[in-house]
Amino acid sequence: MITIGIDIGGSSIKAALTETGTSILARTQRPTLAEGGVDDTVGQLHACIEELIAAHDAAPADIAGIGVGVPGAIDHDRGIVLYPPNLPSWKEVPLAALLSDRWGVPVLLENDANCAALGERHYGAGRSHEHFIALTLGTGVGGGIITGGRIFRGARGFAGEFGHISIDADGPACNCGSHGCIEAYVGIHYLMREALPDLRNDPDSLLHTRALNDAEALDPKDIAEAAAKGDATCIAILRRTGERLGVAIASAANLLDIEIFIIGGGIAGAGAPLFDGIAESARHRVLKVHRESLALLPAELGNDAGMLGAASLML
Amino acid sequence: MITIGIDIGGSSIKAALTETGTSILARTQRPTLAEGGVDDTVGQLHACIEELIAAHDAAPADIAGIGVGVPGAIDHDRGIVLYPPNLPSWKEVPLAALLSDRWGVPVLLENDANCAALGERHYGAGRSHEHFIALTLGTGVGGGIITGGRIFRGARGFAGEFGHISIDADGPACNCGSHGCIEAYVGIHYLMREALPDLRNDPDSLLHTRALNDAEALDPKDIAEAAAKGDATCIAILRRTGERLGVAIASAANLLDIEIFIIGGGIAGAGAPLFDGIAESARHRVLKVHRESLALLPAELGNDAGMLGAASLML
Repeated sequence: MITIGIDIGGSSIKAALTETGTSILARTQRPTLAEGGVDDTVGQLHACIEELIAAHDAAPADIAGIGVGVPGAIDHDRGIVLYPPNLPSWKEVPLAALLSDRWGVPVLLENDANCAALGERHYGAGRSHEHFIALTLGTGVGGGIITGGRIFRGARGFAGEFGHISIDADGPACNCGSHGCIEAYVGIHYLMREALPDLRNDPDSLLHTRALNDAEALDPKDIAEAAAKGDATCIAILRRTGERLGVAIASAANLLDIEIFIIGGGIAGAGAPLFDGIAESARHRVLKVHRESLALLPAELGNDAGMLGAASLML
Repeated sequence: MITIGIDIGGSSIKAALTETGTSILARTQRPTLAEGGVDDTVGQLHACIEELIAAHDAAPADIAGIGVGVPGAIDHDRGIVLYPPNLPSWKEVPLAALLSDRWGVPVLLENDANCAALGERHYGAGRSHEHFIALTLGTGVGGGIITGGRIFRGARGFAGEFGHISIDADGPACNCGSHGCIEAYVGIHYLMREALPDLRNDPDSLLHTRALNDAEALDPKDIAEAAAKGDATCIAILRRTGERLGVAIASAANLLDIEIFIIGGGIAGAGAPLFDGIAESARHRVLKVHRESLALLPAELGNDAGMLGAASLML
């Protein structure tokens, strides 16, 4: 089946024409023009679709459908995108109709974090797993729950907010208004705010000088790189981050009987110190029945996960 | 549809013949004989079924099926009960076959906490709700997740362990080996261990003397009763318990986009102080999208929930 998958990000649109679940036949990318109006962004979507169809030398009728990952809430019954926070001029946009009217094919919308999970399910680390949670560690901590091979949406499609599992009722304030959310430790800005004093206090750290003089420019990838070179403070920061993630992972595993966690996003590339921290903490904390079978897998698709998951919405 | 529902508890078996989802036609109860062998308990199950069929003046062929709630894990594909902790002589018991061979009707098995949730779904506080989590506050904190009107089982049928959501990574040790599990605050023994010093330190508490002289005999129901009479310390204990439950409820609501929580078991009868504590804490902590719609409902079925849920497994 030939489908198109589109991932609408805050700054760029990524799109691919795929043999669904098998291979990418063509791909493209354009700016989202988020600062413009709805028509500007929808125009970019049309342009991407047109380009992909032309690249494959296909007719629109060859396309079984278009899947779109959107950065916000969706009214699935009506195919409407609802007030996506990163597309400020969008209110209630009937995106499914806008695309299907133009291209004459079925269009399905899905939240972008769910698309990323579905991408890993069909093309990535979740290929052989029916039940898992995919986590994306970035500015926030995104999550998508796959169960029985399908997206778990919850009552209104908002499921998967793993970042707002609290691991300490009296922990640091989170932007959401709660305390101790795992995002309030692992989200990039929170992580750096806590890490900087550690780096400044350790004259042996490779990041010591930058933490003192150029803190704004540092991000978790720098910590991951320094850790890979053996920087003890950076290793400790990543390990601590992993241990905290492990607490939330254990809570989710216990609640959902889901034992596989696919972890991607910026600092997931740090590898061992982060994953060792997660494993040690989560294995000690999950119920006995999960202890042997808990698995922590690196995400495989990077930034392509959302686009590929969108392409597989038709499956 | 006429079905039989059976709830196998550690001390007693409860069973009912029902017009499924509508009414109880006959009911009975017998000791589980857990200290005996598998045959003893299965004999009690047969006796319950025989009695219910006789009471209704029915033939086995009138029965569409038998649902059984069991206190432990189940191999659903094979209809086998696996090492239930409260039935020490049970190893792997092919209970579905044992009952269907004798009675000639389909038999379905389900975990007892899931049955309780399903009971509330069809007969109780969840009648008009497709998505909710049912919590039972007792020695442990049991949970059953209903989504799209059905039980959410997870990868192997162990989903719903709400009691082992941690609300403080460094909190009190839980029997499961983790720390800060909500069960380690709200489970009866944990709750009383923390409450007793409060009661002993408050000479005005109605439970002061008993806490000093007869602590063993006190349980959370006494605290609920004293709170109902205006005992300030008991009200504070229940409120604190509610506030902690609210932290775990917010985490689960955020992760699953489930906004309805049906709360039963011993201390749920305390009403206002507990529910006010939950509401205040959970409403402040859930993501904004859930703040208005979060609902905390008292369970309606008490000890009948498991039996009625079992009766509705055939639906």
